[in-house]
Amino acid sequence: MAVVTEYIRLSTKGNAEVVDITTQVQKHLSLCGLNAGIVTVSVVGSTCALTTCEYEPGLVKDIKDIFDKLIPAGPYHHDQAWGDGNGHSHLRSSLVGPSVTFPFRDAEMILGTWQQIIFIDFDNRSRQRELVVQILGE
Amino acid sequence: MAVVTEYIRLSTKGNAEVVDITTQVQKHLSLCGLNAGIVTVSVVGSTCALTTCEYEPGLVKDIKDIFDKLIPAGPYHHDQAWGDGNGHSHLRSSLVGPSVTFPFRDAEMILGTWQQIIFIDFDNRSRQRELVVQILGE
Amino acid sequence: MAVVTEYIRLSTKGNAEVVDITTQVQKHLSLCGLNAGIVTVSVVGSTCALTTCEYEPGLVKDIKDIFDKLIPAGPYHHDQAWGDGNGHSHLRSSLVGPSVTFPFRDAEMILGTWQQIIFIDFDNRSRQRELVVQILGE
Repeated sequence: MAVVTEYIRLSTKGNAEVVDITTQVQKHLSLCGLNAGIVTVSVVGSTCALTTCEYEPGLVKDIKDIFDKLIPAGPYHHDQAWGDGNGHSHLRSSLVGPSVTFPFRDAEMILGTWQQIIFIDFDNRSRQRELVVQILGE
Repeated sequence: MAVVTEYIRLSTKGNAEVVDITTQVQKHLSLCGLNAGIVTVSVVGSTCALTTCEYEPGLVKDIKDIFDKLIPAGPYHHDQAWGDGNGHSHLRSSLVGPSVTFPFRDAEMILGTWQQIIFIDFDNRSRQRELVVQILGE
Repeated sequence: MAVVTEYIRLSTKGNAEVVDITTQVQKHLSLCGLNAGIVTVSVVGSTCALTTCEYEPGLVKDIKDIFDKLIPAGPYHHDQAWGDGNGHSHLRSSLVGPSVTFPFRDAEMILGTWQQIIFIDFDNRSRQRELVVQILGE
């Protein structure tokens, strides 16, 4: 059993931009030489999140719309404390969650054909992001 | 440390059907011969999700109702793209999440008495599903 | 590769009380002697949940407010079954999720400066809670 740590770096425009990172995660997995185990991808920061979806333009719009409806931009108490106006970004991120974990076998993640790993940047401005890809396996 | 990959196959009617899979996950754990570690259960597909709840008929109805309220059936942009009318199924699944991970010790998952692992099929039709149970431990 | 199981015990007042457990998780990690791997923290029970946020008083209020808005107190079907009036506690917990997993390296979790691990007790009364900290690494 071994542990391999890799990183994915992204530039986003924020505002619920959805980035498909499946290929980048799989590339790290393919290069690490492990056959079976789990891969955990996690965000560094509290205004972005990870999950899966069918990555297609319609659904990418729907994701933005549903969060605008469920957790609209503020004012929130957080905005009053910091003045950065991104209280909604934090709340959305906490709800979706900071990490995802997937099994792999034969050096491939076991995902559906229409299931991509997505990073959502909920911040209200452009950001440089770093994700951690932690692979445990044999 | 070893990696064991198992599967759970389910037939569901979709429409937020909730299936308690605790016994099936624990059965794979009991048979694999490992004592301590973590078990990750993940879905294959983007219209279903995993979490935990107290599995009892009232709460199963409440889960269906709360998603009908928070993310009702469309039309969504996704529906216009594919015509399958399940945009809400995708959005609900992304929100709940595609996998869960639990610690185990003495070959038993550490869960509450009233805490069951549930699979929710949010698709808008009957489906055959396969879940992956990936066990890492010693 | 080794598995280390630790526990965190908490007293909460419920009602969406948010507890920052980052220091306690990191303390277990620092003491376990492992350098790289993943740490899974999980709840025992179905009326509480784990995620991350920037832990500051404004956002802690916002978290309480947004759940009061999205999933208000009942009546729910669950409440009719048990009479304990905490149907909303269960629904919120299922939505946020029962566990989180983070990578660590050089014996430190890789988190953002403004990203804390939070336990949310959604129950409608005071509770004694036990969380499991399962560390896998080398």
